[in-house]
Amino acid sequence: MIDNAVLDVLSRQAIELPSWAFGNSGTRFKVFATAGTPRTVQEKLTDAAKVNELTGLAPSVALHIPWDTVDDYATLKQHAADLGVALGTINSNTFQDDLYKFGSLTHVDVSVRQKAIDHHYECIEIMHQTGSQDLKIWLADGTNYPGQGDIRGRQDRLADSLRQIYDRLGDDQRLVLEYKFFEPAFYHTDVPDWGTSYAQVTALGERALVCLDTGHHAPGTNIEFIVAQLLRLGKLGSFDFNSRFYADDDLIVGAADPFQLFRILYEVVRGGALEPDSGVAFMLDQCHNVEDKVPGQIRSVLNVQEMTARALLVDASALTSAQEAGDVLGANAIVMDAFYTDVRGDLADWRESRGLPRDPVRAYAESGYQGKIEKERVGGQQAGWGA
Amino acid sequence: MIDNAVLDVLSRQAIELPSWAFGNSGTRFKVFATAGTPRTVQEKLTDAAKVNELTGLAPSVALHIPWDTVDDYATLKQHAADLGVALGTINSNTFQDDLYKFGSLTHVDVSVRQKAIDHHYECIEIMHQTGSQDLKIWLADGTNYPGQGDIRGRQDRLADSLRQIYDRLGDDQRLVLEYKFFEPAFYHTDVPDWGTSYAQVTALGERALVCLDTGHHAPGTNIEFIVAQLLRLGKLGSFDFNSRFYADDDLIVGAADPFQLFRILYEVVRGGALEPDSGVAFMLDQCHNVEDKVPGQIRSVLNVQEMTARALLVDASALTSAQEAGDVLGANAIVMDAFYTDVRGDLADWRESRGLPRDPVRAYAESGYQGKIEKERVGGQQAGWGA
Amino acid sequence: MIDNAVLDVLSRQAIELPSWAFGNSGTRFKVFATAGTPRTVQEKLTDAAKVNELTGLAPSVALHIPWDTVDDYATLKQHAADLGVALGTINSNTFQDDLYKFGSLTHVDVSVRQKAIDHHYECIEIMHQTGSQDLKIWLADGTNYPGQGDIRGRQDRLADSLRQIYDRLGDDQRLVLEYKFFEPAFYHTDVPDWGTSYAQVTALGERALVCLDTGHHAPGTNIEFIVAQLLRLGKLGSFDFNSRFYADDDLIVGAADPFQLFRILYEVVRGGALEPDSGVAFMLDQCHNVEDKVPGQIRSVLNVQEMTARALLVDASALTSAQEAGDVLGANAIVMDAFYTDVRGDLADWRESRGLPRDPVRAYAESGYQGKIEKERVGGQQAGWGA
Amino acid sequence: MIDNAVLDVLSRQAIELPSWAFGNSGTRFKVFATAGTPRTVQEKLTDAAKVNELTGLAPSVALHIPWDTVDDYATLKQHAADLGVALGTINSNTFQDDLYKFGSLTHVDVSVRQKAIDHHYECIEIMHQTGSQDLKIWLADGTNYPGQGDIRGRQDRLADSLRQIYDRLGDDQRLVLEYKFFEPAFYHTDVPDWGTSYAQVTALGERALVCLDTGHHAPGTNIEFIVAQLLRLGKLGSFDFNSRFYADDDLIVGAADPFQLFRILYEVVRGGALEPDSGVAFMLDQCHNVEDKVPGQIRSVLNVQEMTARALLVDASALTSAQEAGDVLGANAIVMDAFYTDVRGDLADWRESRGLPRDPVRAYAESGYQGKIEKERVGGQQAGWGA
Repeated sequence: MIDNAVLDVLSRQAIELPSWAFGNSGTRFKVFATAGTPRTVQEKLTDAAKVNELTGLAPSVALHIPWDTVDDYATLKQHAADLGVALGTINSNTFQDDLYKFGSLTHVDVSVRQKAIDHHYECIEIMHQTGSQDLKIWLADGTNYPGQGDIRGRQDRLADSLRQIYDRLGDDQRLVLEYKFFEPAFYHTDVPDWGTSYAQVTALGERALVCLDTGHHAPGTNIEFIVAQLLRLGKLGSFDFNSRFYADDDLIVGAADPFQLFRILYEVVRGGALEPDSGVAFMLDQCHNVEDKVPGQIRSVLNVQEMTARALLVDASALTSAQEAGDVLGANAIVMDAFYTDVRGDLADWRESRGLPRDPVRAYAESGYQGKIEKERVGGQQAGWGA
Repeated sequence: MIDNAVLDVLSRQAIELPSWAFGNSGTRFKVFATAGTPRTVQEKLTDAAKVNELTGLAPSVALHIPWDTVDDYATLKQHAADLGVALGTINSNTFQDDLYKFGSLTHVDVSVRQKAIDHHYECIEIMHQTGSQDLKIWLADGTNYPGQGDIRGRQDRLADSLRQIYDRLGDDQRLVLEYKFFEPAFYHTDVPDWGTSYAQVTALGERALVCLDTGHHAPGTNIEFIVAQLLRLGKLGSFDFNSRFYADDDLIVGAADPFQLFRILYEVVRGGALEPDSGVAFMLDQCHNVEDKVPGQIRSVLNVQEMTARALLVDASALTSAQEAGDVLGANAIVMDAFYTDVRGDLADWRESRGLPRDPVRAYAESGYQGKIEKERVGGQQAGWGA
Repeated sequence: MIDNAVLDVLSRQAIELPSWAFGNSGTRFKVFATAGTPRTVQEKLTDAAKVNELTGLAPSVALHIPWDTVDDYATLKQHAADLGVALGTINSNTFQDDLYKFGSLTHVDVSVRQKAIDHHYECIEIMHQTGSQDLKIWLADGTNYPGQGDIRGRQDRLADSLRQIYDRLGDDQRLVLEYKFFEPAFYHTDVPDWGTSYAQVTALGERALVCLDTGHHAPGTNIEFIVAQLLRLGKLGSFDFNSRFYADDDLIVGAADPFQLFRILYEVVRGGALEPDSGVAFMLDQCHNVEDKVPGQIRSVLNVQEMTARALLVDASALTSAQEAGDVLGANAIVMDAFYTDVRGDLADWRESRGLPRDPVRAYAESGYQGKIEKERVGGQQAGWGA
Repeated sequence: MIDNAVLDVLSRQAIELPSWAFGNSGTRFKVFATAGTPRTVQEKLTDAAKVNELTGLAPSVALHIPWDTVDDYATLKQHAADLGVALGTINSNTFQDDLYKFGSLTHVDVSVRQKAIDHHYECIEIMHQTGSQDLKIWLADGTNYPGQGDIRGRQDRLADSLRQIYDRLGDDQRLVLEYKFFEPAFYHTDVPDWGTSYAQVTALGERALVCLDTGHHAPGTNIEFIVAQLLRLGKLGSFDFNSRFYADDDLIVGAADPFQLFRILYEVVRGGALEPDSGVAFMLDQCHNVEDKVPGQIRSVLNVQEMTARALLVDASALTSAQEAGDVLGANAIVMDAFYTDVRGDLADWRESRGLPRDPVRAYAESGYQGKIEKERVGGQQAGWGA
């Protein structure tokens, strides 16, 4: 069922892996450690390279500063290249320092803001060394109680801080601003919705764009609408894929609502974001609290690939005809037909034809890799969020 | 506790009433009729004038076209003036014609779109006759099933339709575009959030602004944040006040969450929207399914007034100090202190001093007005939504 | 992939159709009429029989009193039998009489309660004539404003009213009490959740059971958990299938979240509710506001059938092993593998082998039935909710 | 406005403090430490006693095992008594041991279940030594992915485990089972709603009751309805007070929605739960991530007291009359009048008359206590959740 045109698109699909997906993570109640968890960024890269080796889908790895700080990024870049992957997006972190208890880029105190801005300058400097294109800013800033902060003033200060960071970017670098509906702040979040991110990045300039994290919306939000809208406005910079039932946003992409993922990817296709020059970056942003991490990442990129294949199967011209005819059931059936088509066999064939394992999850299980890292990675401090 | 500075602000507060609040309304399950319900727009104006007479808060009335269509708007304007009120915002309606089953300004068929655009031209024409400033567009457009419509194409067509309408506005007229999270469309809504409304009106020009309806957000949305943001961006055109527990947006403003109303009005104050030249219009958009309509409106404008008074009591400089000191509990206490202050006695005194009834609700009950309209308004067709 | 054991289960699957699905419906904003809509309950039965003829899945039709009131139910029963269907559940209606503005079975006025109880007596009488097993009570009772009613007192009165109705049931009759999170009441609903329905029916006796409507839950609710729990407690009487994105509960079952429907049906299988003697009744409760009604019902029962087939494909013993081994990814993969399997071809083959059309939707389109009813059903009053 | 009848009720109000409110807490992203945080349970008790000394509202302290484990509970009990407080509810913890990664009382492995049951036996033993009445079980059990666990089997095992624990209780001891909508499990929670808790405790016996935590419900849930229902069913054992905007449940009670707290307390009054023999225990369950802990607790108990006073001001007979008359606006106004009444002055007077500070928050600030503990509590390990 999958024809060459679909395979052509799939062949250029690339999904960036987050280095932190290989570390331990959990909830405020408990972080469960897993055997084999990397102790260093180098070990994270090794795991990520394994995912790419088995899937052909994950040629780059996002870093999180300071979790992945090293002395020499040139060496790290070479190390990654040796493993067959590239270093990707640089993620800043202004939420784990005591200084940022009441905010970072929005803080009322100019010296704290400057500290947070300086951290982003450092990230930009790292980007120059790693050759990264995107600086991704997810801001934990917000307040827990009405009155705790001045919502309006914080927004103005955010604009000013972002301006300073943006102006420091190199010509080939971009700033992507992520929004999040809630957490870790409980009353108000300084960048809670796509509208805020859009308004802020529009004020900055062309190389400032919105990052859409699929887990960061209010219940009932039509996320594919936002995808369509941001593509229409030319302001969708990147995706953070994951999924969520109610409130945590770290489940495997597609796990909670595969049909939603399909609809999102359909709008991605519809809006041209899979075209080579779209400028839209695709990335996972999720963790694995109770499941194994490497196969969790393998499953994640496969989910995106399989759902992309389904989205590409939508018969666009038949759909347009049905829509124009007001044929509600007919139009819906065209979309559902693509969603319900089982593409897994075809993708396995295609994978095999490219020298990849038919079933990457099984190949991982049979590779002995998990046993190897569990045996080798003993002692030291397992990577985690450092919270 | 309420000082003259507060009273000065309150003295210029004006809340527009929606003509449809005086008609019957209900749910898809049942519309209960009420004795005394107006049969004509003139009777609606009479009721609205009663609200203004007893509260001094509601000097204008919004019309809904075609529900309030008359042959001669100049006469209607004079009729309103004779009753002591003005005609206000004109609300268009493109959701009750069979033609609009699959959309209006977004419809795939150019002739349907033109019909919807023409309706807005008609509204603009009425505005010239009534002297109305604002054309308010709430769009019921959307789809019920994935695939039913092309989300992206509909957005582009919306932009085009709005452009044509905007270009027809007179120099003193404004277009305010309302957003709504859901309903009556169940899968996707063409203007679902403030970001979409903001992006669309920003593309139009200075006299296109966002209308924020307090009942039109996803669960958990921080509405006062949006108020602050839109004021910051200079794009808040008007408020539609009402309240909602879960899904209907027609309860009396402040009924479901008075503290939320307080926080919204605090940001209104904070953002200067009560200043004479703010350009922000305040209006109710609610109905009364099971309660009496005229006293329902009286209670509504009083709720806004009382909550505005509380918001004005916030000690801004003490709050700033507490915020700057990182005193979370102190800052919150300053806000809560204002919210918990009972301003009703002071407002009654002030009302009395201005020749208004101390207790407008009681004054209405004692006025005999309700009995009078119930007796007089017999026969004919009671006003409603015409659904 | 589908083996005979699965087909055996599928062969006894029966999904009751709601008569009102063939009438017009809509929102509080607009009800769009459709050509060919039945004017009488007999015409509704004719449409329902067509659905059954093409799918073999819908051998009975639920009636709604008074929407489907006739003088002679014996004749109606025979009429249905002649069409090849049976009359099923009787649904009461205490929400469209002016009397019930402030409640029915919970009303503070004993005479109103008696009227509502009498209506249920009438329904029971009809059940005797139609041979229906279930009396389904969905109560629209509730309040819009805090204080409007006494929540506690209403619950006590509900218990008393239900007791009187229950005591009137024949030995082979059952009472199923539906719960609904909200609407048409906006502040509180008298039977808002499964806990309330469970507590009320448990107090009544063995033949009182809970009705679970898939669209009647708060956002984020794990519905399959409730299915599992009610089956465990022996109190799941029936399903009302439909789907919902945010707030209306009348979309085609499976349309909004097919994976959720799969998970629900998996717990149905797991809990033995597809066994011949399970006592669980399956029914649609949905309407078709913008799509064609007969094919809408065809699509709905097919969705349930297809998803049941997928649920039956779950490898239960492999799943248990993975669960017991704490293999999170493995267990999840077993479930997802069943969900992602395309069963449509196998089901078409099986349908054909039973003398049914391979593709019932296409068969309907090619049958000329729609054109016929559009031509014949002219004049008269199209059926609807009568709101 | 507050008369003696109200004061009589208030004079017997007691709100138990959670020992963990005095320790550090935070989110999965960061736990901010605070100067002066207790290192030991004894220091927690000292802080709690301070709250009680200043408010007269908090005569007991709940313990959390193992966070508050000591060698000798008799000594601890005496220590508490010397400080003027009693030891209260014992909270079990089966969520921080690696063993419990996939469940505790619901675990598929009998040895893990036994370990969890044994932990509750230990808690019961502690209760005998501390004289505690209630064993509170909040279960973190659940799963993150569909298929990970067998929902039905887990529920059956839960019932069995609870039975064993219940049977070990002394005659004067009670088991209260808390429910929680989500977190830390993300797909399914084993005790997600009041219905589940009610069904489980009803199966156990009279001394098993439901614990209602005000922050543990789906968005839009009418919590006061649940309060009314559980009181009606005689199964409300205790309250955990806190508040929540979207997803964390640790904000100061009343902070997010004071009107909701008022409505809850109104149903508490209506249902007789403030009567001396009601058997309903009132407790805080909240933490203070960014605000000071001791004054945070003071503010919390005052919020409950103030809102209880408002709830007691509702004119019950006038309300009943308005409800019976179908006077929606009148009934609502009676409730709102009580809510809007500023009781703070009267409560300050009354507090003073009882030898308590008029303003406990200010009294705390002026007491020098905070400075003292910040100075004294240096070194050691600050208490926290131990995650």
